[in-house]
Amino acid sequence: MKRLLLFIMLAMPMMVLASSVKSPNGNIVLTFELNGSTPTYSMTYKGKDVIKPSRLGFELAKDKHATMGMDQHDLMDGFYVMKEETSEFDETWKPVWGETATIRNHYNELCVTLGQEIVLKRRGPAVPGIHERPATALRTMLIRFRVYDDGIGFRYEFPQQRFLNYFIIKDEHTEFAMAGDHTAWWLPGDYDTQEQETQQTKLSEVRERMQKAVNWDNSSVAVFSPTGVQTSLQMKSDDGLYINIHEAACLDYATMHLELVDSQTKALTTKLGGGSNAYTPAPAPSPYPLPQPFTFVSHLTPDATGLKGAMQAPCNTPWRTVMVSDDARDMLSSNLILNLNEPCKIEDTSWIHPTKYCGVWWEMIVGKSSWNYTDDFPSIKLDSIDWTKVKPNGRHGANNEKVKRYIDFAAKNGLDQVLVEGWNVGWEDWANMWKRDVFDFVTPYPDFDIKMLNEYAHSKGVKLLMHHETSSSTQNYERHIKEAYELMNKYGYDAVKTGYVGDIIPRGDHHYSQSMNNHYLYVIKEAAKHHIMVNSHEATRPTGLCRTYPNLVGGESARGTEYEAFGGSRPDHTCILPFTRLQGGPMDYTPGIFETRLSTWSDNKSWARITIAGSLALYLTMYSPLQMAADLPEHYEKFDDAFQFIRDVACDWDDSRYLEAEPGDYITVARKAKGTDNWFIGGKCDENGHRSKIKLDFLDKKRTYQCTIYADAEDAHYETNPQAYTITRYVVKAGDVLKLTEAPGGGFAISLIAQ
Amino acid sequence: MKRLLLFIMLAMPMMVLASSVKSPNGNIVLTFELNGSTPTYSMTYKGKDVIKPSRLGFELAKDKHATMGMDQHDLMDGFYVMKEETSEFDETWKPVWGETATIRNHYNELCVTLGQEIVLKRRGPAVPGIHERPATALRTMLIRFRVYDDGIGFRYEFPQQRFLNYFIIKDEHTEFAMAGDHTAWWLPGDYDTQEQETQQTKLSEVRERMQKAVNWDNSSVAVFSPTGVQTSLQMKSDDGLYINIHEAACLDYATMHLELVDSQTKALTTKLGGGSNAYTPAPAPSPYPLPQPFTFVSHLTPDATGLKGAMQAPCNTPWRTVMVSDDARDMLSSNLILNLNEPCKIEDTSWIHPTKYCGVWWEMIVGKSSWNYTDDFPSIKLDSIDWTKVKPNGRHGANNEKVKRYIDFAAKNGLDQVLVEGWNVGWEDWANMWKRDVFDFVTPYPDFDIKMLNEYAHSKGVKLLMHHETSSSTQNYERHIKEAYELMNKYGYDAVKTGYVGDIIPRGDHHYSQSMNNHYLYVIKEAAKHHIMVNSHEATRPTGLCRTYPNLVGGESARGTEYEAFGGSRPDHTCILPFTRLQGGPMDYTPGIFETRLSTWSDNKSWARITIAGSLALYLTMYSPLQMAADLPEHYEKFDDAFQFIRDVACDWDDSRYLEAEPGDYITVARKAKGTDNWFIGGKCDENGHRSKIKLDFLDKKRTYQCTIYADAEDAHYETNPQAYTITRYVVKAGDVLKLTEAPGGGFAISLIAQ
Repeated sequence: MKRLLLFIMLAMPMMVLASSVKSPNGNIVLTFELNGSTPTYSMTYKGKDVIKPSRLGFELAKDKHATMGMDQHDLMDGFYVMKEETSEFDETWKPVWGETATIRNHYNELCVTLGQEIVLKRRGPAVPGIHERPATALRTMLIRFRVYDDGIGFRYEFPQQRFLNYFIIKDEHTEFAMAGDHTAWWLPGDYDTQEQETQQTKLSEVRERMQKAVNWDNSSVAVFSPTGVQTSLQMKSDDGLYINIHEAACLDYATMHLELVDSQTKALTTKLGGGSNAYTPAPAPSPYPLPQPFTFVSHLTPDATGLKGAMQAPCNTPWRTVMVSDDARDMLSSNLILNLNEPCKIEDTSWIHPTKYCGVWWEMIVGKSSWNYTDDFPSIKLDSIDWTKVKPNGRHGANNEKVKRYIDFAAKNGLDQVLVEGWNVGWEDWANMWKRDVFDFVTPYPDFDIKMLNEYAHSKGVKLLMHHETSSSTQNYERHIKEAYELMNKYGYDAVKTGYVGDIIPRGDHHYSQSMNNHYLYVIKEAAKHHIMVNSHEATRPTGLCRTYPNLVGGESARGTEYEAFGGSRPDHTCILPFTRLQGGPMDYTPGIFETRLSTWSDNKSWARITIAGSLALYLTMYSPLQMAADLPEHYEKFDDAFQFIRDVACDWDDSRYLEAEPGDYITVARKAKGTDNWFIGGKCDENGHRSKIKLDFLDKKRTYQCTIYADAEDAHYETNPQAYTITRYVVKAGDVLKLTEAPGGGFAISLIAQ
Repeated sequence: MKRLLLFIMLAMPMMVLASSVKSPNGNIVLTFELNGSTPTYSMTYKGKDVIKPSRLGFELAKDKHATMGMDQHDLMDGFYVMKEETSEFDETWKPVWGETATIRNHYNELCVTLGQEIVLKRRGPAVPGIHERPATALRTMLIRFRVYDDGIGFRYEFPQQRFLNYFIIKDEHTEFAMAGDHTAWWLPGDYDTQEQETQQTKLSEVRERMQKAVNWDNSSVAVFSPTGVQTSLQMKSDDGLYINIHEAACLDYATMHLELVDSQTKALTTKLGGGSNAYTPAPAPSPYPLPQPFTFVSHLTPDATGLKGAMQAPCNTPWRTVMVSDDARDMLSSNLILNLNEPCKIEDTSWIHPTKYCGVWWEMIVGKSSWNYTDDFPSIKLDSIDWTKVKPNGRHGANNEKVKRYIDFAAKNGLDQVLVEGWNVGWEDWANMWKRDVFDFVTPYPDFDIKMLNEYAHSKGVKLLMHHETSSSTQNYERHIKEAYELMNKYGYDAVKTGYVGDIIPRGDHHYSQSMNNHYLYVIKEAAKHHIMVNSHEATRPTGLCRTYPNLVGGESARGTEYEAFGGSRPDHTCILPFTRLQGGPMDYTPGIFETRLSTWSDNKSWARITIAGSLALYLTMYSPLQMAADLPEHYEKFDDAFQFIRDVACDWDDSRYLEAEPGDYITVARKAKGTDNWFIGGKCDENGHRSKIKLDFLDKKRTYQCTIYADAEDAHYETNPQAYTITRYVVKAGDVLKLTEAPGGGFAISLIAQ
């Protein structure tokens, strides 16, 4: 049988076999073709090319550890189709938390089983279960396509088999051939940071923008190519198609970047440099021909060896996703990424809950107080300091008095939790030292009474929110994680914000490698065992894992509000993030800055590019079950009428309607609060302002609503007059129309309370 | 003051400042000299050169993480002497276990404080505690020399200071300039294995022997230089000096190799290749001039980045040691390495005890039974197999019946413990796959009833000895270590044999790097918390840490008895190891093979190059508090009269006398069993045989002794007649003389029971 298949394969190398599958509504057509013996796919939307024929496959490392010492023939060509299967799937599921109460997962599937005959080396280790070493062997690889109304997902699958058992990926060669010189909203492809400002250029302009796009002062820069970009990558074609490339369910696999082949590309991946990248071996050149210009090629994040992935069959890659629509709002309402993830694996989810919180944090970011307790030592070793005897610097933020002030504020304003950063010893020399034993995660500074403060908080119906900065010393975190979580359980914490600032230890590894992705998942699973929710900062960008592990309630993985204290972010930033970063899951963006001119209350000269009304809008437009009121209590107290919206707004929803959207320009969304008939609407725009006309056709026709509108004042402006807002109240009903004007860098927020 | 010192330094660059210190008996003279501004040292023994003037210092990596972004001037020159201090130390301490009841630590010390003025970059991060950035800064480094009667130790120390805070070592440049073309017993310098056969050549012959010295089939070879060798390195000069270079107290620091500069050396360290070495960046060339031929230069083991050490002051290096004598026996009786380690850090040591054991092990090594339970899968994932349903291969060694047989044997013969390898799931694809989640260390195979077997053993006064093969996936081991040790506590195990076969995960790291040495120590400390003794296989070679952590009762870290089943080791092998590997601590050599021709009872064609009498001798000549009777019970039962010696011999001692010794030729030692007046004597020789004349002048003059001599028969020979031995009994007294003949590859063993 095997010989027959080999014969067939050899006999038809020039044939093109094509199979297509359509989305349920027929708008999207996915075509798989074997071009010669090379797998390719293409995709159209309403007859327009979205992905032109694009190669699929893998280069394998010629590594001694792989596949019983057998010949490491790449998984690039030499394939024939053994089997094709199509199927339909339609199911509605309920997320533990989310933008809607239910999510429909409806797709048509094409699964292609590919065979590849390889020649075996004469000598080599024994293969378990095989007594006589054959001359050739069959390897199989499946490619599974799922075609939705709003896009496609596909992944590679490797069944358990004798001759493709362990293998190491040198690089994945999944191509995405674009049909034109689209406009793209992109971040420089980087192994360690995703906190740069998003660039908006034509694909043809990526190369010339790259040097300017990289802030080389960022301590974690590790850029790999002059045309490398990150996912989720949002694009728009000249003929009005919105296209988004990302991935779903990236579990024990490296995070994917995209390397753009343009007219100047001579070869893939010339290592560009930066930080810990200096220690990553330069990749060996690929022997395969370059694709056409405007093609993206997958580029996986390497570990310290420069290798991209250690695989053991049975296994599969994450889903590679391409979302498409001629309506930008569909990019935001899509559940494609979540749907491609596995159902919830946590049996009892009763302890997982949406959370609104404030915290001892912004004043440290701004520089008004400090994480560390003393300035006395050039460096510290945790086991050799008597903390009760060191000289305090007098600026330590996480002190009993201040934390109680925040607890009081949270209790008074209905906030669930209070984050406290800098509570534990080790902050004196925590960052950028490649220091392994940086924190123990259990020892508080002497002015932070962990028992008293938790009891005080609980007595007021508030919880503290734990903070575990790892300083990227993941080995150290894993050594302490059980004791750290036991401490949390002991004192009644149920959520942790983790952090991964600086270069990774084990040294030479990168934030987005397979091993680090495994670490983040390990943390999520260990936390789940202890009924702890995780909010992971500086971790890899999310790919919808929160469906499977809903205790992953948030993350950073992008440029957050903290950058407003580091020089600022452009006003359009928050009109891009929902199209890019938020595709994979919620972001702990920490909105709510009311005192935008930091110099009015600190020595920090930076300022937030947003109006107060715009800040309120973010609680809607930046969906997250974890929402912070990030500014200081005294700043909210100055604007208590506006703060009322933050008190009122929900953070879990039964329904969401994206009313208006254009990447980098504006986003308007209406959401129905969980278990109620109340709606909240937010609109956020870029530096150009925006006029919104909102038809309230989603309200319950049998009810009226108390409508409160928090809007930019007529003369509001993110730079010159950010604190000018108006609050107006009406009674409205279904079908009414609201007309709103958003100031430059502004927005609006509306609460509609059912009567 | 600082400026004045700078002036002095600049004013005398060509001066040579020398300070000397002698050993307590005056035989050894250590001289420290500042040659220009470069630190050097030299050493003589009875007026003869041992170490000619040799450079001391460090090249530092120009890494962004180091020293607050300051200029990374190397620690090689530009030094001046700030202070010199001499002192004497004389103390006697008691080891928890050992070759003698007490150990004298007697040395003279010279401690030199060196200053180095460095120019600071104009810009750079703030230095804590320093408000205005000075133009220059003072850095200090101490070199502490301890001079014993049998050698020297010295180390570098870095006090806490503002301008040498965090730094990364590119390489340590400690030189050892030999006075001639000595004979050396050496192993190829290798980042991952120390299990090659020892080579005996002149220093000038190392380079031409190297290719032959490396067994490239070893799965862990990572060789770094054509003249790189390992420590402990034993040498002998043409004029009869025995010289040994090693290190003591290697804690959070990379293991040191030695790179020999010979007449052909053009530059240090050309990467030679092998295994995981492929992923280690090639070291940048050193800008410093080469030393004279016959000089060894320290070469530290890199981690995955190619860097050698991440340091945080205050800190120090391990001790670099040079032992010397004109009597080879002094090499074996020396306690210099132990003395240079810190005193015991474990408060309650009552649970630490010498142990004699047998185990389900040798039959797997030989290939007669298997570690794994099934052959059914090309690979396995621990979380997806129902072990009760898989098909057993019928060869699984660690089954209830067999383990009970070993327990019965141990109980009958006074052995304390039974090692069982292959008891836990995961052995189906454990090695050489770079598989991370290879074992969970808590799940037994279905035919190993962990509860029943421990209870059975305990009912007979025997304990089981735990086995944790990590497959070098240290990340996986650290994740499971607490649960694994809790399981041991639960079932009453008090000792674990750990293993590190294969390449390290985190991938790219090496067995002997700083990070791995930190891991081994982490394991020892975690074990101590659980009152568990550790016997660490394939870990880094020991440097006397068992003084500080006496729960480290043994280790492998050399070519053990297992190689007798892998083609054999030379008969002189066990006459070299006590001079080399054993300098740092006891070895779990697993002696006691009686059925040396493996083909008589298995399909294995290999054979052990030793006689039965020689095997008995190893229980004396290879000192260890942990001694295995490695052969199968049925083989011992065939030779029960010889096995009587293994039943009788102690493994903890009040006194030890090395009676005869020559590296690679013969070793004879007499030891007095702990808390008794009984003595045991062992003599072991190489392939040439040996005649011993033993004067029993160490016996108690007031007593007589029942003397039993286990000797090679007249026609015994390790190859042709290994099982020919005689057992004779006498009554002897102090002053009597025994004459013994050791066959080629043979030896003898004597018990002297006080009457």
